Amino acid sequence: MEMETKDEQYMRRALDEARRAFDDGEIPVGAVVVCRDRVISRAHNLTETLHDVTAHAEMQAITSAADMLGGKYLKDCTLYVTVEPCVMCAGALGWSQISRVVYGTADAKRGFSRFAPQAFHPKTEVTGGVLEAECRELMQAFFQHRR
Amino acid sequence: MEMETKDEQYMRRALDEARRAFDDGEIPVGAVVVCRDRVISRAHNLTETLHDVTAHAEMQAITSAADMLGGKYLKDCTLYVTVEPCVMCAGALGWSQISRVVYGTADAKRGFSRFAPQAFHPKTEVTGGVLEAECRELMQAFFQHRR
Repeated sequence: MEMETKDEQYMRRALDEARRAFDDGEIPVGAVVVCRDRVISRAHNLTETLHDVTAHAEMQAITSAADMLGGKYLKDCTLYVTVEPCVMCAGALGWSQISRVVYGTADAKRGFSRFAPQAFHPKTEVTGGVLEAECRELMQAFFQHRR
Repeated sequence: MEMETKDEQYMRRALDEARRAFDDGEIPVGAVVVCRDRVISRAHNLTETLHDVTAHAEMQAITSAADMLGGKYLKDCTLYVTVEPCVMCAGALGWSQISRVVYGTADAKRGFSRFAPQAFHPKTEVTGGVLEAECRELMQAFFQHRR
């Protein structure tokens, strides 16, 4: 088996979270925040369970990471998320001044790159397409399952 | 004294919330959600108090209104907020499918109309400039006070 990159290893943790969402009947999106090579928060989408449109994986992961660090800025952190962040989450990531955002599969319908391409802090580095196929297939399985 | 419009009356409630934020040393933004002529939630910015960039007045008001209604959509609701929503809050309001958003003063630096003009649901009606001077003066007083 080929060695996975660090990005792939962390994305796999986000995928574990996404599968938890799937099992709960939630759109399967998972996220983790990594600070100095350590996962400091993890979360999955809970919008249905909580009846709350703001309960996306990223939002919870941001809140939880800031709580862990004791400050609202995530300057030395990377967020890994299985699906491209939406406008809301990109706006929140912008406020957090996070160093880096890594996502799995793009979201052509709701992704920030279409609706708010400048939402992030100018210094935030963005990488897409990490474990893209697995992240996408999980989303497709969910929507096929619901039909 | 001239009779105030309904919009002005509700914006005054949002201003009361904004003053609470001011008194707590928070950027003074307040919001209320109104459903069928009744205030069902109210909130003010708590980003410093909670060390959480997601704790904007609007985000808390959305979560609390959905909790009150027992469902995540705010289709028959209006959000009143003293300052133009940012990208994050506009994205959240988009997901909520709220009927109407009314804001006080524009935010040229961070407002959604510059960075994510299509963030709202296509059917959401947006009105700006209600009690604009009072909302703006409260923000100016806060930033002068901090210098």
